[in-house]
Amino acid sequence: MRFDFEGSAWVEKDGYRVKRAFTISEDSLVQIVEIKAKARVGKHYHKAQTEVFYIMEGKGTLGLGERGFLAERGDLFLCKPNSVHWVVNGSESPLRILVFKYNWRENDTVWL
Amino acid sequence: MRFDFEGSAWVEKDGYRVKRAFTISEDSLVQIVEIKAKARVGKHYHKAQTEVFYIMEGKGTLGLGERGFLAERGDLFLCKPNSVHWVVNGSESPLRILVFKYNWRENDTVWL
Repeated sequence: MRFDFEGSAWVEKDGYRVKRAFTISEDSLVQIVEIKAKARVGKHYHKAQTEVFYIMEGKGTLGLGERGFLAERGDLFLCKPNSVHWVVNGSESPLRILVFKYNWRENDTVWL
Repeated sequence: MRFDFEGSAWVEKDGYRVKRAFTISEDSLVQIVEIKAKARVGKHYHKAQTEVFYIMEGKGTLGLGERGFLAERGDLFLCKPNSVHWVVNGSESPLRILVFKYNWRENDTVWL
């Protein structure tokens, strides 16, 4: 199946929005996250879920554990369970990230 | 963890090469596949594994089931178990694909 980027709905959050691309299974999915210009996703972690982030477009800072990484198109990151992470988009353009969620479950996110 | 694109080894195949980026679990991983110019990955399917393909660089044709899709940077595809798939790179440049493998296991690939 080819994903139709225009055909599915964004879910608006505070400073960013998310769109589900594919449901792989009950506990795995692919999502697109777009952080707006001059906005952020706050520090949080997941108790069970592992995430893979691929930077599709834009530039920002991706925080993983104790480190902040410059993140730009083509960069790839792994975030294991219980690893604190966050994103800051200090630029004037949206930052778009492809997210592969493994071992996803409800009520698994802890915001700090 | 940030993936170091230069730091890990390519495994050479016939017309393409693969590099493991991250091991998520025993049955899930992230891989980069690079199909050489004027080369292809032949028709095959997986009995149990689901794959997600994100086109990182280049242009080609991605076959899924009965259909061939023009695939270029930014395109995203889902391939469920038992769905025949293949890739043709008719261009003069490498075609690089980010692959998420879910429910991976050994001896799961059937070449046609």
